[in-house]
Amino acid sequence: MGPGVRFFSDNAALACPQVMRALGDANRVDIPYDGDAWSQRLDAAFSTLFETKVAALWVATGTAANCLALAAMCPPTGAVICHRDAHIEVDEGGAPGFYTHGAKLMLLGGAGAKIAPAAIVDLCERIRPDVHQVQPAAISITNATEYGLSYRAAEVAAIGAEAKRRGLGLHMDGARFANAVAFTGETPAELTWRAGVDALSFGFVKNGGINAEALIFFGPERATNARRMLKRAGHLQSKGRFLAAQLLAMIEDDLWLTNARAANAAAAALAEGAGQERLVHPVEANELFVRMTANEAVALRAQGFDFYDWAPGEVRLVTSWNQDMEAVGRLAAAIAAL
Amino acid sequence: MGPGVRFFSDNAALACPQVMRALGDANRVDIPYDGDAWSQRLDAAFSTLFETKVAALWVATGTAANCLALAAMCPPTGAVICHRDAHIEVDEGGAPGFYTHGAKLMLLGGAGAKIAPAAIVDLCERIRPDVHQVQPAAISITNATEYGLSYRAAEVAAIGAEAKRRGLGLHMDGARFANAVAFTGETPAELTWRAGVDALSFGFVKNGGINAEALIFFGPERATNARRMLKRAGHLQSKGRFLAAQLLAMIEDDLWLTNARAANAAAAALAEGAGQERLVHPVEANELFVRMTANEAVALRAQGFDFYDWAPGEVRLVTSWNQDMEAVGRLAAAIAAL
Amino acid sequence: MGPGVRFFSDNAALACPQVMRALGDANRVDIPYDGDAWSQRLDAAFSTLFETKVAALWVATGTAANCLALAAMCPPTGAVICHRDAHIEVDEGGAPGFYTHGAKLMLLGGAGAKIAPAAIVDLCERIRPDVHQVQPAAISITNATEYGLSYRAAEVAAIGAEAKRRGLGLHMDGARFANAVAFTGETPAELTWRAGVDALSFGFVKNGGINAEALIFFGPERATNARRMLKRAGHLQSKGRFLAAQLLAMIEDDLWLTNARAANAAAAALAEGAGQERLVHPVEANELFVRMTANEAVALRAQGFDFYDWAPGEVRLVTSWNQDMEAVGRLAAAIAAL
Amino acid sequence: MGPGVRFFSDNAALACPQVMRALGDANRVDIPYDGDAWSQRLDAAFSTLFETKVAALWVATGTAANCLALAAMCPPTGAVICHRDAHIEVDEGGAPGFYTHGAKLMLLGGAGAKIAPAAIVDLCERIRPDVHQVQPAAISITNATEYGLSYRAAEVAAIGAEAKRRGLGLHMDGARFANAVAFTGETPAELTWRAGVDALSFGFVKNGGINAEALIFFGPERATNARRMLKRAGHLQSKGRFLAAQLLAMIEDDLWLTNARAANAAAAALAEGAGQERLVHPVEANELFVRMTANEAVALRAQGFDFYDWAPGEVRLVTSWNQDMEAVGRLAAAIAAL
Repeated sequence: MGPGVRFFSDNAALACPQVMRALGDANRVDIPYDGDAWSQRLDAAFSTLFETKVAALWVATGTAANCLALAAMCPPTGAVICHRDAHIEVDEGGAPGFYTHGAKLMLLGGAGAKIAPAAIVDLCERIRPDVHQVQPAAISITNATEYGLSYRAAEVAAIGAEAKRRGLGLHMDGARFANAVAFTGETPAELTWRAGVDALSFGFVKNGGINAEALIFFGPERATNARRMLKRAGHLQSKGRFLAAQLLAMIEDDLWLTNARAANAAAAALAEGAGQERLVHPVEANELFVRMTANEAVALRAQGFDFYDWAPGEVRLVTSWNQDMEAVGRLAAAIAAL
Repeated sequence: MGPGVRFFSDNAALACPQVMRALGDANRVDIPYDGDAWSQRLDAAFSTLFETKVAALWVATGTAANCLALAAMCPPTGAVICHRDAHIEVDEGGAPGFYTHGAKLMLLGGAGAKIAPAAIVDLCERIRPDVHQVQPAAISITNATEYGLSYRAAEVAAIGAEAKRRGLGLHMDGARFANAVAFTGETPAELTWRAGVDALSFGFVKNGGINAEALIFFGPERATNARRMLKRAGHLQSKGRFLAAQLLAMIEDDLWLTNARAANAAAAALAEGAGQERLVHPVEANELFVRMTANEAVALRAQGFDFYDWAPGEVRLVTSWNQDMEAVGRLAAAIAAL
Repeated sequence: MGPGVRFFSDNAALACPQVMRALGDANRVDIPYDGDAWSQRLDAAFSTLFETKVAALWVATGTAANCLALAAMCPPTGAVICHRDAHIEVDEGGAPGFYTHGAKLMLLGGAGAKIAPAAIVDLCERIRPDVHQVQPAAISITNATEYGLSYRAAEVAAIGAEAKRRGLGLHMDGARFANAVAFTGETPAELTWRAGVDALSFGFVKNGGINAEALIFFGPERATNARRMLKRAGHLQSKGRFLAAQLLAMIEDDLWLTNARAANAAAAALAEGAGQERLVHPVEANELFVRMTANEAVALRAQGFDFYDWAPGEVRLVTSWNQDMEAVGRLAAAIAAL
Repeated sequence: MGPGVRFFSDNAALACPQVMRALGDANRVDIPYDGDAWSQRLDAAFSTLFETKVAALWVATGTAANCLALAAMCPPTGAVICHRDAHIEVDEGGAPGFYTHGAKLMLLGGAGAKIAPAAIVDLCERIRPDVHQVQPAAISITNATEYGLSYRAAEVAAIGAEAKRRGLGLHMDGARFANAVAFTGETPAELTWRAGVDALSFGFVKNGGINAEALIFFGPERATNARRMLKRAGHLQSKGRFLAAQLLAMIEDDLWLTNARAANAAAAALAEGAGQERLVHPVEANELFVRMTANEAVALRAQGFDFYDWAPGEVRLVTSWNQDMEAVGRLAAAIAAL
């Protein structure tokens, strides 16, 4: 990767110092798998954070977290309703099909990768209940969405109510859950179980972590089989203390929220500088989708800025927990000057 | 975990300092997934080590490495021949069935969890080739075995020849491959591809690593689909540089071999002290299976030694890369004094 | 089912006398599974019909035929491109996901459930070749389509060329293949392998059979694994002679074509009577989709006609191999008189 | 198949006249799939036979019946305990792995392919309950067994009690259930649900049927998901009336029992003639496993008798519902004369 200022991906960013330090602390002799002292504290620590009893499993990737959650909710004969731009549909290499043993994803539209309750109703009403048609078993939404929009608690609750009405599980892909909490100012509890969410993939890797995400089950009984599936998928690491320690470091002193606020602030500053007319979507997390000609993109890159070409005439800028605000200012000015 | 001297599990041991240091070095901005500088060096580095062109993938667990290798070799309609005490049969929570979409494991006996070519012949000859019976597609052996025995290159080659004769793939579960190389004095090449091995799960976690194993394909073309399966299984970490860096640290200056020699030496010293008549199996790696009454075990534990009850009248002692030789001496003496 | 004249479903129709007679003939002692004299004649008989060497397997349902074909072409990590109204997507209870171990269906639009080559190109060009996105491995088209349109050979060939260019397999769901042959006047060979089709589900059940469909592989080598999958799916009947005999009876003296022509003629007569403005789709097989108010439907049913409510303001009429032409005339007149 | 007298397989035998006649009767226009009048009568008819409320599904093969039952009882993460000579292990092409999405079969020994409760206890006690080891979820027994032995109700009940104690489902592969009922003189109810059986594959094909077996769920709620799996496996035939009619014909006037008694009587006569010392297993159904040198087998075949070489020095003789008793007498005499 060349020199310059990166707005390429939050996966490309550094791990934050507290997480690195936690790895050192976790390098002690302890019981293998999830029998160690760190792993054993997870349920309690996340139960406190979510103000209810939860089961919290560490897992190395968001894809695994998402798909274990879906498999816990959806039988092979069933389907998961999601947006057609959802990460589980577009960017997980077919992992949902693997983990669920071939359940379907049923795709909905919706601006900014958000799902509306009415779209769920419409889809479900068109499905005959007979055995010839696959029946939905769960809904998965992403918060913040793949286009950087944040669901408010009331929006999640409207979907949650529809899910309950139809006996569907509700999963939230929270790869950028921290950014949604930071943006909405609503609590983790309000955005999840109080709004009807049954399982949350709580992302830390894009937010300063290394390789540990949390899979949260609000009905802890669902976690029992998920723990077996996690092992069966080869995700039960023998030195799990190194993952658990990352998660504990991230939630201690609300580091996850501090990091997300910093990334959101950088994105907001960029949005302000770029101007509304360039923004494809409202900026409600740490991602911007910016209208830009190919020539303009070349001009910005010539100034040392690094970012992703999202679509013809559109680039994606992602800010990180440790984004240099001086560089943000320069990029904002450079876009404004285009 | 209480105080005392641990011979409980090599998974319980510390990560070695070079690996910890590598994590710090890898904490740089880089391309996500396996596009980073460290990951991109793996093929070349392992090709040098194995004296042939290989594809080397990082993966977080030995279970995932094993099962990705098996799935690359065995169709859902097929079977993998292995020992009935093999880790893939006994201790992976059914992961082979998950990754292969339901292929069978066909089980063989054999002292010390070793498979003999004659047993393979015998099994295969009893299978009708018709569609009513599942046909074997691969063989999996563990080196060092689950009971701490090391296959010599000639033994592997005899199995490899049988595999080739029957069109079967050959996988080696090398969770303790380093210990086998250290014990036999044979080269990585001699113990693997020169003896007919098609894929190797090369373990580092039990040997001083944290959470990175190497999956080596000697026919690199097999790796192409395995890379897709790895993603589909949720194992493609977005900050893969932290895994690749561990592997590179381990093979630099033959750290992996130094560590394994140390663990083997500790095991050999214990074996010497314990005396032949107590040993259930020859000690050819870093594990000892020791005949011991329940009272004797209590007596040892009272002296602060920590180990695993394997079976009635039998305990397992595992030595690590950093085993304190003074403690080894004390344990050896304590066993001798029982 | 009440009295009246049925245009409800070709699955509801009678089996034709030649097929019933064949069952009696097949009731002899013979080798189980597909070792009997009838089953052994299938490859040759269908090779003659298709003017090339084919492998022909009997299977009890079109769903099984379709999904075995797809699984023979598409790995679990891959995808099958099809129309969003395709039977495999809409009406097979998720069977493609089961047989392919979780491969995706990628959905295209297109009038009358027909796929256009341009739509395939457009879809494929938007897929990144990396491991994060599922890659298409096959295309499946239905001929005649779910809305009763028949692909001409040239149309199939255009899709076939695109498939070959991209290394994709091409499957044809021919639940009503006979009707397509009858309508287009093109030969079985022209509509399939000469146009690039690799596998055909050749339907007989809707065309006067009982419970035997033919699964035709134009590359017979693909059939080898399909035969194992067929057994593994529990579809290898022990008295296969009763299925093979049905297929042989159907292709003897071109009974399949005679039956399809009769059904098509009945549909054409209905279409003529109903008038173009009522037809949602051109009538090119044995199905009509007819615009009709709820009141009109009630009026027709009051006259004893039986049919399926397809959508608001639309009914489906299906004609069978033995449709009574006098009743057809009455229904046509009744529609015209609405 | 050459001329002679067949003792080769009950799959090779004729369908009985009542079943053939039922096919003709079922050739009426009716609702597709299982909506027809015959299919709709199955639950009631089998509930009467079993003296309890059951759900009865038709399915074309015993393999499909077995595997649908197992999949209804055993999650992908689980295991089914069975005999190592069980049909599901040996002769179903891996179908249990397909239908259960990779659950394991755990194999037990036992004379005559019978499982003893003590063997189940022993197996289960050796399994650690942790996630590293696969946990059993069901037991499958075959009655009559693969070696022609019949479990008595008390034997089944002992297994059933053990299953209940451990929370395991109990499946009975009854490919030759009729023969077991005929031999033991115990009722269908006594041999199944009263003894703890949850699901029964009730075979008719080997007993004079064509291609319809019954899958009986004694807890009808289990059938709901099984009906979806049946469709998803491509086993929901569109003209199901032709299968349902076979089953109804077989249970009307206890034809199934009459047929089985005839086959058993033929086997008993052969056993008597052959003499105890030649019999590998007691003859308790319609199969004999007879010690015989290769030369003796040649001699019998020269007299026109047809049978299966089971193992070196052992042949299998199977009698059918319509076995010619005169031929049985000649074969018995021929064996006695060897």
